[in-house]
Amino acid sequence: MIGIDGARARILAGLVAVGPETVALAEALGRITAAPVLARLTLPPADVSAMDGYAVRVAEARAGATLRLIGSAPAGHPFAGAMAAGETVRIFTGSFLPDGADAVLLQEDAEAVGERVVVRETVRPGQHIRRKGQDFTEASTVIPAGRRLGPRDIGLAAAANHPWLAVHRRPRIAILATGDEIALPGEKVPAGGIVSSNAHALAAMVIALGGTPIILPIAPDDIDAIARGADGARGADLLVTTGGASVGDHDLVQAGLARRGLAVDFWKIAMRPGKPLMFGQLGDMPVLGLPGNPVSAFICALLFLRPALLRLAGLADAPLPLEPAQTKTPLRANDRRFDFLRAVLERNQDGALLAEAFAVQDSAMQASLARADALILRPPHAPAVEAGGVVEILRFERLGL
Amino acid sequence: MIGIDGARARILAGLVAVGPETVALAEALGRITAAPVLARLTLPPADVSAMDGYAVRVAEARAGATLRLIGSAPAGHPFAGAMAAGETVRIFTGSFLPDGADAVLLQEDAEAVGERVVVRETVRPGQHIRRKGQDFTEASTVIPAGRRLGPRDIGLAAAANHPWLAVHRRPRIAILATGDEIALPGEKVPAGGIVSSNAHALAAMVIALGGTPIILPIAPDDIDAIARGADGARGADLLVTTGGASVGDHDLVQAGLARRGLAVDFWKIAMRPGKPLMFGQLGDMPVLGLPGNPVSAFICALLFLRPALLRLAGLADAPLPLEPAQTKTPLRANDRRFDFLRAVLERNQDGALLAEAFAVQDSAMQASLARADALILRPPHAPAVEAGGVVEILRFERLGL
Repeated sequence: MIGIDGARARILAGLVAVGPETVALAEALGRITAAPVLARLTLPPADVSAMDGYAVRVAEARAGATLRLIGSAPAGHPFAGAMAAGETVRIFTGSFLPDGADAVLLQEDAEAVGERVVVRETVRPGQHIRRKGQDFTEASTVIPAGRRLGPRDIGLAAAANHPWLAVHRRPRIAILATGDEIALPGEKVPAGGIVSSNAHALAAMVIALGGTPIILPIAPDDIDAIARGADGARGADLLVTTGGASVGDHDLVQAGLARRGLAVDFWKIAMRPGKPLMFGQLGDMPVLGLPGNPVSAFICALLFLRPALLRLAGLADAPLPLEPAQTKTPLRANDRRFDFLRAVLERNQDGALLAEAFAVQDSAMQASLARADALILRPPHAPAVEAGGVVEILRFERLGL
Repeated sequence: MIGIDGARARILAGLVAVGPETVALAEALGRITAAPVLARLTLPPADVSAMDGYAVRVAEARAGATLRLIGSAPAGHPFAGAMAAGETVRIFTGSFLPDGADAVLLQEDAEAVGERVVVRETVRPGQHIRRKGQDFTEASTVIPAGRRLGPRDIGLAAAANHPWLAVHRRPRIAILATGDEIALPGEKVPAGGIVSSNAHALAAMVIALGGTPIILPIAPDDIDAIARGADGARGADLLVTTGGASVGDHDLVQAGLARRGLAVDFWKIAMRPGKPLMFGQLGDMPVLGLPGNPVSAFICALLFLRPALLRLAGLADAPLPLEPAQTKTPLRANDRRFDFLRAVLERNQDGALLAEAFAVQDSAMQASLARADALILRPPHAPAVEAGGVVEILRFERLGL
């Protein structure tokens, strides 16, 4: 059995980002840039006022001086002429500084009566001016390639004058759930069966991570049916299977995919929950075989599907955002399998993060998975930890999952 | 000027969740439950095996004993008869335990030759059995009302046999950007003008938070045009305006909306960036007036639009996930306005979170907003902090923004 890092490295080794597509700015939220976004203009486009007030010459704008108001220049309506000696122009936040002005007198520091503006506070050189290009200059990179676009990036791309953006298309992730015992939600559950949940949880994860899921029809425990099921994944960037990947007599996924030429890279991995994990290639298409247990499938998907999908989606690297926390309960020394404990989090009065592992960690318990805030990581052979000791955790919130 | 908490409380006071709608399970990701989700079945539906192995009677399954194999019961194919004394049935993870069996012998601890199964390891009572209802029981609440559904919840709802869910509809947030100086991305920028970015950043924020944005056409600095622009918001759950909300001569939003009967609750708030903030009602529709500066608008939206939208969306409470960090640079004592400093984060070798505020915090600098990982909160009259001192921060990642 190989370790988690080794497995992840082998999965990622063969994956490259899918191609680009052009999307409208409004559609680009959450997508990953396929090219740097270069500013199409300089911002501010000229020296502008940072406040509402009066454009002045700093040499004249001493407390007690009186200036002559010769006009007003709201933002978007630059003053046409130049300001001569002794003159001032009413300006507003974002207004271009008129020719001849070199500072801004705050309106609170001025007293205006008709055409006369009395300076009440001596102005410092350059005061309240935003310099041309202070935010960005034309042709500079405002957003690098390979960045996931959040609302702030969308605003920045808009400000840089981009109505369209080049982003990676969403990776297509085909999901094949297998098993005689599972039925779609709302459909008749066979005797001794359960409702299929893995495909739906994984599809939701795929969407949350920026991919497009294709939920293939459930394949029964039949080699030919599994082979035909996989045919439906044609054109997908990755096929994920669930179930049928353990070591029992009913390990049919590998046998089914073998009919279509599956080349297995590895299967089985030293972790808990999740031991039966398979990775291989079906022609050009990578295949990730997840366990059938819902908790195992989800945690394996976090560890292996997530980085694979993000690599396909255009992120060069997407390390798990691990962080330290104190365990609320003592933890036993671990054996040779990497262990992931579902836990809830709280903060103590000092702001320190406390993680409390659930007492029961059965890999079929989806309710406790849904209720958990985080996983506590217990590497192979990790020593016992007393209550209050520091452990590494992975918060679901930080993954958006 | 009122403080941030007071402003937020006044905004939230009048807001209630929008109504429910029925959506397919696959559409429910990110939506907020409008009713508790009750399990429609018990899981596991019976005592089942947690491993691949053999169903046994614990009294007989001592090391060295030989049992007679009378059948096989894959998951989904329960064993029809009952197990008599001295008998065993091959079972798999998820298989129903046959009548008469009370434990599971691991396949690794058994030696099977034809119909004979030799026990190699004495079995403990109840070993490797998942009890009926261990995950959840029929009619119990598996997901409470008012929870935002993540991929784990989608899986749990599926397992509980729900093809449809009742969720709050997405709040409709109308966004009205105002100003003579702004143009849509890709369109001709007027002389002295800039490209409109606020509406696009806010629309993306609305989507990220689970709402539906309606980007109204830009309204010029004209009272009638602003009034007509607001008419386009009819049927929205909230109207957000940007620009025209400060104290200059060009504060036209309030005047424009007054033509339609705006009742102002408050305007101006003791924070930086973001001082000009307006809240009021236009008939039944709440109106939030944000500043025109992009950074101010975004931070005000984080503080006020976000909780308003989440309340409308069905979350009872959505406090900001503040957390402690060490400041990398000394910070000056603050004045009476709440200050929000853009900062980047790193972790030191001990895992402690360090926040480094940008040296320049001009509220027009969108590039630095996009580059920031967090905001450092500086409450009114906060004392100076040395480098290494602890401050409160707000991470954009944790907001999904």
